[in-house]
Amino acid sequence: MAKVFSAEEGSCWVVLHGNVYDVTEFLPEHPGGSKIILQLAGRDATAEYDPIHPPGTLEENLKPEAKLGVVDPESLKKLQRQAAQGKDAEEQKAPPPPLHTLLNLDEIEAAAKTQISKKCWAYYFSAADDLHSKYLNNTAYRNILLRPRVFVDVTRASTATTLLGHKVATPLYVSPAAMARLAHPDGEAGIARGISRFGAMQIVSHNASMTPEQIVADAAPDQVFGWQLYVQTSRAKSEAMLARIGKLRDRYKFVVLTLDAPVPSKREHDEKAGIETQLLVESSKSEEEKAKKGGRPDSSSGVGQQLFWGTAADLTWDTTLPWLAKHTDLPIVLKGIQTHEDAYLAAQYARKNPGSIKAVILSNHGGRSLDTAPPAVHTLLEIRKYCPEVFDIIEVWVDGGIRRGTDIVKALCLGAKAVGVGRAALWGLGAGGWKGVERTFEILQGEIETCMKMMGVTDISELGPRFINTRVVERDIFDGGAGLDKSGLWTSSRAKL
Amino acid sequence: MAKVFSAEEGSCWVVLHGNVYDVTEFLPEHPGGSKIILQLAGRDATAEYDPIHPPGTLEENLKPEAKLGVVDPESLKKLQRQAAQGKDAEEQKAPPPPLHTLLNLDEIEAAAKTQISKKCWAYYFSAADDLHSKYLNNTAYRNILLRPRVFVDVTRASTATTLLGHKVATPLYVSPAAMARLAHPDGEAGIARGISRFGAMQIVSHNASMTPEQIVADAAPDQVFGWQLYVQTSRAKSEAMLARIGKLRDRYKFVVLTLDAPVPSKREHDEKAGIETQLLVESSKSEEEKAKKGGRPDSSSGVGQQLFWGTAADLTWDTTLPWLAKHTDLPIVLKGIQTHEDAYLAAQYARKNPGSIKAVILSNHGGRSLDTAPPAVHTLLEIRKYCPEVFDIIEVWVDGGIRRGTDIVKALCLGAKAVGVGRAALWGLGAGGWKGVERTFEILQGEIETCMKMMGVTDISELGPRFINTRVVERDIFDGGAGLDKSGLWTSSRAKL
Amino acid sequence: MAKVFSAEEGSCWVVLHGNVYDVTEFLPEHPGGSKIILQLAGRDATAEYDPIHPPGTLEENLKPEAKLGVVDPESLKKLQRQAAQGKDAEEQKAPPPPLHTLLNLDEIEAAAKTQISKKCWAYYFSAADDLHSKYLNNTAYRNILLRPRVFVDVTRASTATTLLGHKVATPLYVSPAAMARLAHPDGEAGIARGISRFGAMQIVSHNASMTPEQIVADAAPDQVFGWQLYVQTSRAKSEAMLARIGKLRDRYKFVVLTLDAPVPSKREHDEKAGIETQLLVESSKSEEEKAKKGGRPDSSSGVGQQLFWGTAADLTWDTTLPWLAKHTDLPIVLKGIQTHEDAYLAAQYARKNPGSIKAVILSNHGGRSLDTAPPAVHTLLEIRKYCPEVFDIIEVWVDGGIRRGTDIVKALCLGAKAVGVGRAALWGLGAGGWKGVERTFEILQGEIETCMKMMGVTDISELGPRFINTRVVERDIFDGGAGLDKSGLWTSSRAKL
Amino acid sequence: MAKVFSAEEGSCWVVLHGNVYDVTEFLPEHPGGSKIILQLAGRDATAEYDPIHPPGTLEENLKPEAKLGVVDPESLKKLQRQAAQGKDAEEQKAPPPPLHTLLNLDEIEAAAKTQISKKCWAYYFSAADDLHSKYLNNTAYRNILLRPRVFVDVTRASTATTLLGHKVATPLYVSPAAMARLAHPDGEAGIARGISRFGAMQIVSHNASMTPEQIVADAAPDQVFGWQLYVQTSRAKSEAMLARIGKLRDRYKFVVLTLDAPVPSKREHDEKAGIETQLLVESSKSEEEKAKKGGRPDSSSGVGQQLFWGTAADLTWDTTLPWLAKHTDLPIVLKGIQTHEDAYLAAQYARKNPGSIKAVILSNHGGRSLDTAPPAVHTLLEIRKYCPEVFDIIEVWVDGGIRRGTDIVKALCLGAKAVGVGRAALWGLGAGGWKGVERTFEILQGEIETCMKMMGVTDISELGPRFINTRVVERDIFDGGAGLDKSGLWTSSRAKL
Repeated sequence: MAKVFSAEEGSCWVVLHGNVYDVTEFLPEHPGGSKIILQLAGRDATAEYDPIHPPGTLEENLKPEAKLGVVDPESLKKLQRQAAQGKDAEEQKAPPPPLHTLLNLDEIEAAAKTQISKKCWAYYFSAADDLHSKYLNNTAYRNILLRPRVFVDVTRASTATTLLGHKVATPLYVSPAAMARLAHPDGEAGIARGISRFGAMQIVSHNASMTPEQIVADAAPDQVFGWQLYVQTSRAKSEAMLARIGKLRDRYKFVVLTLDAPVPSKREHDEKAGIETQLLVESSKSEEEKAKKGGRPDSSSGVGQQLFWGTAADLTWDTTLPWLAKHTDLPIVLKGIQTHEDAYLAAQYARKNPGSIKAVILSNHGGRSLDTAPPAVHTLLEIRKYCPEVFDIIEVWVDGGIRRGTDIVKALCLGAKAVGVGRAALWGLGAGGWKGVERTFEILQGEIETCMKMMGVTDISELGPRFINTRVVERDIFDGGAGLDKSGLWTSSRAKL
Repeated sequence: MAKVFSAEEGSCWVVLHGNVYDVTEFLPEHPGGSKIILQLAGRDATAEYDPIHPPGTLEENLKPEAKLGVVDPESLKKLQRQAAQGKDAEEQKAPPPPLHTLLNLDEIEAAAKTQISKKCWAYYFSAADDLHSKYLNNTAYRNILLRPRVFVDVTRASTATTLLGHKVATPLYVSPAAMARLAHPDGEAGIARGISRFGAMQIVSHNASMTPEQIVADAAPDQVFGWQLYVQTSRAKSEAMLARIGKLRDRYKFVVLTLDAPVPSKREHDEKAGIETQLLVESSKSEEEKAKKGGRPDSSSGVGQQLFWGTAADLTWDTTLPWLAKHTDLPIVLKGIQTHEDAYLAAQYARKNPGSIKAVILSNHGGRSLDTAPPAVHTLLEIRKYCPEVFDIIEVWVDGGIRRGTDIVKALCLGAKAVGVGRAALWGLGAGGWKGVERTFEILQGEIETCMKMMGVTDISELGPRFINTRVVERDIFDGGAGLDKSGLWTSSRAKL
Repeated sequence: MAKVFSAEEGSCWVVLHGNVYDVTEFLPEHPGGSKIILQLAGRDATAEYDPIHPPGTLEENLKPEAKLGVVDPESLKKLQRQAAQGKDAEEQKAPPPPLHTLLNLDEIEAAAKTQISKKCWAYYFSAADDLHSKYLNNTAYRNILLRPRVFVDVTRASTATTLLGHKVATPLYVSPAAMARLAHPDGEAGIARGISRFGAMQIVSHNASMTPEQIVADAAPDQVFGWQLYVQTSRAKSEAMLARIGKLRDRYKFVVLTLDAPVPSKREHDEKAGIETQLLVESSKSEEEKAKKGGRPDSSSGVGQQLFWGTAADLTWDTTLPWLAKHTDLPIVLKGIQTHEDAYLAAQYARKNPGSIKAVILSNHGGRSLDTAPPAVHTLLEIRKYCPEVFDIIEVWVDGGIRRGTDIVKALCLGAKAVGVGRAALWGLGAGGWKGVERTFEILQGEIETCMKMMGVTDISELGPRFINTRVVERDIFDGGAGLDKSGLWTSSRAKL
Repeated sequence: MAKVFSAEEGSCWVVLHGNVYDVTEFLPEHPGGSKIILQLAGRDATAEYDPIHPPGTLEENLKPEAKLGVVDPESLKKLQRQAAQGKDAEEQKAPPPPLHTLLNLDEIEAAAKTQISKKCWAYYFSAADDLHSKYLNNTAYRNILLRPRVFVDVTRASTATTLLGHKVATPLYVSPAAMARLAHPDGEAGIARGISRFGAMQIVSHNASMTPEQIVADAAPDQVFGWQLYVQTSRAKSEAMLARIGKLRDRYKFVVLTLDAPVPSKREHDEKAGIETQLLVESSKSEEEKAKKGGRPDSSSGVGQQLFWGTAADLTWDTTLPWLAKHTDLPIVLKGIQTHEDAYLAAQYARKNPGSIKAVILSNHGGRSLDTAPPAVHTLLEIRKYCPEVFDIIEVWVDGGIRRGTDIVKALCLGAKAVGVGRAALWGLGAGGWKGVERTFEILQGEIETCMKMMGVTDISELGPRFINTRVVERDIFDGGAGLDKSGLWTSSRAKL
C-alpha cells in the first residue's frame, strides 16, 4: 500500500469508494476533460465522482491492472475528512421543510434550492442564453384560458389513458433529466419510487447517475420506462447501450432519440458554477491559458458541456433511423421536434416505416438548447393549423414549462397524448428524496383532477379545443408555412413571408 | 358541575357561550373534520366557533342530552383568559382609520387588512392557484376605454332599474360571500344595514355566519335579498333549507344556485393559514401522518376546503332543476356561467320552463374556483357575439373584479343588468363594521353617478356598447364557437379550432 | 381699531393684505364652502387667500361696509408671524436647481416638486381615479414610431403656422390650468412672459389666480391669448365675464368652452391633501359629522372640487351655443371632445353656423375628468378613420400627455393644428418662475426642431401620416362607429358591436 | 523657457506631450468650443486632449510658430501631478475581471463600466431622449422566435460570406463608433487587432481617436476596412479626407456616408456628464450666462454635441452623391436608412448609377439620433413587404441592438448580408483593450455558430425567413406604404392612413 501513497512521477491516481485507481491512461479519454480529474489527483474523489457517474462507469473504462489496491480504513477516514473540509463550511443546508406544507411546484423548487449544492442548482435551473424560451414555455400555458362548463356530474373523473399501447393511470411522464443523484442519493431510482403510486411513465436519461438496471430494480409491476438515446460519435458505444437496454425490455418499453441538442448549448448559470470552481483551483494559471478553449471542455465548462462530450452531431433522417432499426426493435420516440414541418416529416416516416416512430415529443429541451426557440404550445398549434393529420398517425407528447395541473390539461386539450416534467421531478428529489418526488406528483395529479372537474370533464378523452381559449397565443405562432418540398423544407412559393 | 371539568376518558367536551357540550358523537359528522374540534377539547371554544357558525348550528346538530350544563362565571372568565392568551399578543390591531378618509376600494381593503385576523384576510383574499383569474377579472375592465359624450344636460342622473321585476335604486348587489363575522361582529346583518341606504340587493351566502332570519330582521321594507344554494350531497338538508327560506319569502325573493364550484378549489393563501395553525398545534406528529389527505379535510385545510365539505358534485341540467322546482317556487338564478354555450343553454331552459331560471350570473367565483377561467367580461362579449338573444330571455348579471364605478358602468354597457361585489363588502365590513360597508357603497354609488354624468348619460337605460371601446379585450375572447349539438356542446365542425 | 380685535359674538372677520374684513354674510356664498373660511377666522388669511384668488375677488363679493378697517403695523407683524408658524417648519424647500441643468420635462417636474407646497403638487399632479387616462395620454405617443427620411437639406426648419387665422411661430400653446400662483408668485403673467420668446399661445384658465387684465398687461405685441369659459349655474356671472373679456379683445382672441368636466371628478391625490389639512384642523369633530358630505364641498375636498362649485352641468348643443353667441362675438373653441361623433357634430354645427365654432380641442382634461377616457391620439385616429372631413371644416387641437418634442410632431402628423401643454407650464413655473416656463418651452421648441430635421422635414406643413407608424395604437381605437342618427348618436344598426 | 511659464496677458497656452503651444488664435475655430480649452489654459492638457484627438490634429490646425517650445522634465512632472490630482481620487477603478469569465455582451458591458471613466461611459451608453429606440433595437430581435430543424448533419457550419465582393469569414462588422481611446489606449487599432482572428470588417469612425493610417498599420493582410464620412460644412475638409483615404485603398475598401444624423441629437446621459464637468469649473458664472446656448456648443454639451460641430445638414440625393463621385471611386455605402422608401430610392439610384451605391445600412444610429425611430428589423420587414427587389440590387446591412448570436442569425434570415456592432466593440475595448474586443467577438462568433447548428443550418446562405417566426414584430411595422411619387415620397392616395 505504501506504493499507493507515494507520489509517483507522471502518474495520476485517485481514491474511489476505498479503492485506489491509476487513471493516468484514462485522462485523455475522460468525457469531462482531464483537468477535472487532475484537480482530484492523489485525493479521495468519491464525493465528486459518485453523484454523477453510474456505478460501474470506472470499471468499464479502466483496465483491471489500473486498480492498484485498497486504502486502509484509517487513511481513508483521513482522506475523507480532507475531501469534506471547506465543503461543509461552504454549504450549510437549511433543515428540510415538511413536504405537506409545500403547495405547488414553485414551492417545491424553492425548497429544493435550500437542500442542494449551488452547482446542482445551477445545472438544473440553467437554460440557454437569456432564458427566454424557458420563460416562454410557461407563459404560453398561462396565456391560454380555460372554459369551464357547468351542470355536469363530476363526482368522479379519470385521467387514465394509453401511451404507445400501454395503459397508464395518468398522462404525466418524467422527462429525461441527467444526474439525479446530484440532487439526492435516491437518484433516478428515487424518481421511479416517487411516481409509482400515480402510474406515470419515466424516461431515463442517457446521463443518468445510476445504471439502467438499478433504476428499474424496485419498480412496480406495471411501471413503464423509456430510455433516452444520445447517439455517440462512437456508434459502437450507442449500439452496446441499445443491446443492454434490449435485455431490460420488460421495463424499458421504448427508446427516445434526442434531436434538440445536436451541439452543446450555452447555459450561463451552469458555466458560471463551473468557472467558480475553476477560479478556486487554478487561480495561479496565466490568463491566456485559461481563455483558451476548443475541442474538449475544460473544468470551467458547466456540467452540461462536460456531459455533452462525445455526442454525435451528424444525425439525419436517412442514416440514423435505419441504423437504429438495426440495433433495437423497441418503438422509437423522437424528442425535440420544434416545427410542424418536422412533425409532418416524422409522421410521413412513420407511415412509410411501420413499427419505427411511434411518437414525437415537442420540446425545446426545457429552454436549454436554443434560446428563443418556440415553446411546445406553439408547435402544437402549428400542427393543428397546418397538418392536423399528424395526430392520427403518431402520438404527440410535449414537455417544458409545466407548473400547474391546468397547464397539463391545456396541452391535452390541444391534442397532446402525454405531458412531461423534467426539472419538477428533480426539484422534488432535491426537496425530499423519493418522498419529494411523490409530493410533486401528488400536487400535479390533484391539480389535474380538480381542473377536469371544474371544467365539467370526467374523462381525459373528452378534452379538446372547445375547453380552451388560445387567442392570445395563436396570434403569435408562425404563419409562413404551407407546403413541403422534396427536401422536407417548406417551399418558399407557399410561404407567406 | 365538577363532572364537567374532569377529563373523562374517551369523551370530548367544549365550552360555548358558557355552556358545556359533549361533542364526542358529533366528531365524525363535523363538516370541517374532527381534528379542528379535538384541538379545542376541554377549552372555551367560543372565539373560534362563533364567527363561523350561525347561531343554532350546534343545537341543530346535537341531541339535547349533549348539553352537559353551564360553567360558573369565575371558571368561565378563567377559560376565556386562557383562550385569549397568545391571540392578543399575536394580533395587535392598528386603530381603525376614519372611514371618510378612505377614498376608494383599494384603501378600504388596505384598512380592513389592518383590522382583521390573518386567517380572515387569507380566506377573503385568496383565489385559485396563481390568482390569474382574480387579476384578469379586474384588468379586463381596466382595458376597456370609456367614450364620453359632451353637451348633454347631466344635472341629474338616475341609476334606478328593475331586477327580476323588483324596482331597485341601483344595479349593485352583494355577491354571496361566506362568514362575514370573521371580519366583524356585525356580520351579514351589518352588510344588510350598510347597503340599505343605496337600495342594493344582497345575496346571502350558504355559509353565512348568521341565520337567514337574523340577517334580514332589521332590513328596510323595500330591501331585496336572495339566498344562495350549494346543493348538499344530503339532498334532505338542502330541501330543509329551501323550506326555511320559503317562509322568509317577503325578504328572500330568489334562490341562487351556485354552479362554478362543483369541487373544492386550491386557494393557497387560505391553505397556508390553515397549515400555520396546524403546525403550531401538531408539531409532534409524524410527517407521513400529516401528508396523508383524502376524503374529509383536516385542520390544515384552509377555511374554504372546510366549508366545502358535503357539497354535491353531481348536478345536471336534467336532474337538478326539476328537483329544485319541486322544493321552491322562488325564481332561480344560476351563478357561475362562464361560457356563452352555458348561457345559451340556460336561456333555452328558461324558454321551455317558464318560471324557472330568471337570470344567470356570469362569474368565475371571484377567481376562487379554477385559475385561468375567463373573467365575466369575456363571457359577456362571447354572448354578444354568438348568442345575443340570451339578453332578451333572461337577465344577465356579473360579478368579479369590480374596483371602480367605471367598472360597473362598463359591465352595464355590455348588457349586464346587475353587477355584484363580494370581497368589497367584506373588506368594508372589516374596515369598520356596517359603517364600513356603507362607506364602500357610498364610494361605488358616487363613482357610478360621476361616471354617468361625465359620459353624458342621465339614465342607466341609455348605457350601451357605443359608450365603450372594447378592442383590447375583444381580440382575446374565445373565437371557436359557432353551434351547439344536442348535448349542449358546440359542434366541432363549426368550431374554428 | 380696538373694535376690530375684539371677538364679536356671531361675526367672522379675517385680515387680508393688512385690511380687516367682516365675511360673516359671505360665508354661505363662498364657492369653496364656509368651513375653510371659519378655520381662518380672526387671523391673517393672506397667505392662504392670496395664491388662489385673483386680486379684486373679495372686493367684488363684499359690500363696502364689510371692510372694517386696517390693522396697525405692529399687530399685523404679529398676526403674520402666527400665520407663518408651523408652515415654515413643515415645508423646508431645497435650493432651486440651475435651470440649464434640467434637460427634459421630467426633470422640470421633479425640480418643481422640490420647490412647491405639497398641496400645490397634489393639485397639479392629480388625475381621475387610478390615473389610467393620464398614463395613456403619454404612452399613446410613445407607442407611435417616427419614420425619418434621409438626404433632405435640413439646414433650416420652420415651426411657424397659423391658428384661427393668427400667425404664430410655433404650434405650441398653454392649456388652461388653474391657479398658477400656487406654484410661484409670477403666476399666469409669468407664464405669459416665459413663453413670449417662442410665439406660443396661452389659454387663460377660468380659475386663474390673476385677473385677465394683469395676465396680459406686459405681453409682447403679437402674443395671442384665449380665455377659458366654465359656464356658471348663475349665467349672469358668465355673461359679465364674457363682457369683461370682450373689452380685452386686442389680447384675447377666442373663447374656449370647456365640455370635458360637466361635474367634479375624483382626484384622489388632491383630495388626500385636502383631507390632511382637515385632519389637522378638525380632529375633535365626530366622525359622523365628518363623513357627511353633499352639495357644497367642505374643506376636506381637494382644491379641484372647491374650484368647481357653481359650474353648470346643463350645457347642450341647442341652448348653450346660441346663448354664447349672444354674449360674445369672439370665435369659439370647444374643449373636451373625446369621440369622433362629437367632433363630427361640432363640424356640422360650424358649417351651419359660420363664425361660431372655429376649433375643437381633443382632450380628456389631462386625465383629470373621467378615468379610462380615451387619449387625444385615439380621438385623432377615430376622426381620420370615420370622418376626416372634420379637418377641413374646423381646426383640431389636442392636449394631454406631451413630454417630448417628438410627441408634438406626432400629433401634428395625425392632423392636429396645435398642441397644448398644461401641467408642463405649471411645473416650469414651480421650478423657477417665468424663467422656468421659458426653460420648459426652450426644451420643447428645441426638441420639435431637432425632430423635424432628423425626419427630413423643413416646414411644419409637410408633416403627415407617412412620417409615423401608428400600428400599435391604431389596433386599440374604437371600431364600432359608422353613422349618426338624428340625435347625434351613432346608429346601432351600423355599429359593429 | 521662462517665457513659457509667465502668464502673458491675452494669450492662452497649453502643454501637450511636453510641448508648449500658444492656442490663442485657434480658440474660435475649435470644433468643441473655446471654453473647453480655456479651462485647461496654462496646464498640461495631455490627459484630456489625447484620448479624443488623433495624433497630428493640433499640428494640422496650428501655424508652426504657435509651438513655443518644450517643457523641462522637472516642470513637466509637476504639471502632470497637478493634472492627475483629484482625477485619481475620483475615479478609482476596480481590478479588471478575467476576460474568460465574461460569458455574454451584457457582462462585457458591465465589466467595461468598472474600467472606464464616467464621461466615457456616458458617451458610449447614451442614446436619444428616453432611449426608446435603443431599447426597441434589441427587443425587436428578442421578439422574433427561431424555428430549429432536426435531423441535419451539423458537424460543421460555416459563416463565410462575401461583402461588396470581398470574401469574409463572418458577416459581422464593427460599426463606426467615435473615440475608442476614451475607453482604452489601444483605441481603434486595438479593435482592428481584436477582430482580426475572426475575419470581421471594421468601419472606421469619422471621429476616430487615431489616424486612418495608424488604425490599419498592423492589420492582417485580408482584413477589410471601410471609412465613415460625415460630410463637413467645409466641403474642402471632406475632400481632403477622401483623398487621404484614397491613398489607403489597399485597406479601406469602401466609404460609408452617414445620413441618420443630419443635426446633433439629444443624448441626456452624455449631456449630464458634460454639465457635471462644467458645474465643477464654472460654479461662479451667472445663471443667465450659463443658460445661453446657440451656435457652437460650450463645454456643458456632451461629447456627442462637440464632435458634431461642422457637420453639414444639407445633403441631398441630387447634390451629394455626384459630388462624392467626383472625389472618390470607392464604393459607397449609405448608412442610416430607416424607411423602405429610402431603401427603394437607394436601389433606384444604384441601378441608374452603376458603381455608386453598393450597400445600405439600416440603422437608427444605435438609437442615438431620433428617439422612437424604428429599429432596423422594422425596416428590413418593410422592405421585404413593399419592395423586396431592393435585396437583389444592393446589399442590405443592419446594425443596432445586437446582444446575442441569435440576433445576428435572425437579421440574416430576414435578408441582411452583414450585421454590425458598435457599442459592443467599445465595451470590449473598455473591458480589456484589444483582448477584450477579441473576447467580445469570440463570444458572438461562438453564439452564431451554435445557433446555426441548433437550427440545422450548415452554411450561412441557407438562412431565410422559414427559420424564424416574426409574427410579434410584423404586426407593428408600418403598413401605410404603397407607391412613390416623383419626389421619392409615397403617394398619399396609396397610403392606407
